[in-house]
Amino acid sequence: MKKFEEKTIQSKVLYKGKVITLQVDEVLLPDGNKSSREIVKHPGAVAIMAITEDKKIILVEQYRKALERSIIEIPAGKIEPGEPQEETARRELEEETGYTTSSLQYVQSFATSPGFADEVIHLYFAENIEKMSIKATLDEDEFVEVLYVTIEEMESLVTNNKIYDAKTAFACLWLKDYMKKM
Amino acid sequence: MKKFEEKTIQSKVLYKGKVITLQVDEVLLPDGNKSSREIVKHPGAVAIMAITEDKKIILVEQYRKALERSIIEIPAGKIEPGEPQEETARRELEEETGYTTSSLQYVQSFATSPGFADEVIHLYFAENIEKMSIKATLDEDEFVEVLYVTIEEMESLVTNNKIYDAKTAFACLWLKDYMKKM
Repeated sequence: MKKFEEKTIQSKVLYKGKVITLQVDEVLLPDGNKSSREIVKHPGAVAIMAITEDKKIILVEQYRKALERSIIEIPAGKIEPGEPQEETARRELEEETGYTTSSLQYVQSFATSPGFADEVIHLYFAENIEKMSIKATLDEDEFVEVLYVTIEEMESLVTNNKIYDAKTAFACLWLKDYMKKM
Repeated sequence: MKKFEEKTIQSKVLYKGKVITLQVDEVLLPDGNKSSREIVKHPGAVAIMAITEDKKIILVEQYRKALERSIIEIPAGKIEPGEPQEETARRELEEETGYTTSSLQYVQSFATSPGFADEVIHLYFAENIEKMSIKATLDEDEFVEVLYVTIEEMESLVTNNKIYDAKTAFACLWLKDYMKKM
């Protein structure tokens, strides 16, 4: 886990924002030379693959300013300071879709952009979900539309690039395999 | 593709580095309110799922300063200015593994962190690969070790978190499905 370790000589925070922090680390390479690494710090996120009783996958469409377009994703959101991951998963499912669940299964975690960011997404699965009587509220700068799709429809959304992010691309393959075994 | 569009009021570049650029956009939300979005600009990357004649998957281990650990990934690298994606794919395969190929198949593209970055990874697959007689050289600040694993070994690397990034997690599911049909 420390193979080819790059030791930190100096670390400088250049920007501290609402969501991310940018730092540049001066590092000592394994061959003794120096280099610099630009690193984005992120609190981490949780994403939920949730399916309804009639085997529809719950997706959300939202605008992503970084991409200058809207894309369709599995529900997800940032971990709040001190919040347990499972709590984030349930909260985001409730806020974004109006569904809740008491049976979250942990699936896998992965770094999204290890070349320049420390963001890790923790992926959960929920198949026993129920509609909430009172809808939870979204963050005030968040606008999402909920979609219910079959796995075949989800695959079409990948093909035509409406699904266009790593976690949801992963979810599509994972769910296809899971649903085959149902 | 423009649902819930967030119009740019003002865009400010705060940092221009070797690899990434940080900008903060002031945006007009769909409800008429304003907010800001922190956005990391990245040139985009290409990753290659390559398998040898005896059905081993080629992986590379490298240190990721952002994660402060080494992880095992499919070969990948940034797109150089003006470089066609397929060229990047072949170049990175050659530089990182010492193999080359004349039969790259495009698989899929996805954004890695659409919440704060515009990075898109373009994924290729190569099964007709051949060892180069002269090894291409890595970037001077790049240190990688090449691994050859079966799909079952790749799945174990996911389970024990040695594979720990989104593109390689995706690749593991994709290759498993592909190899079943071989």
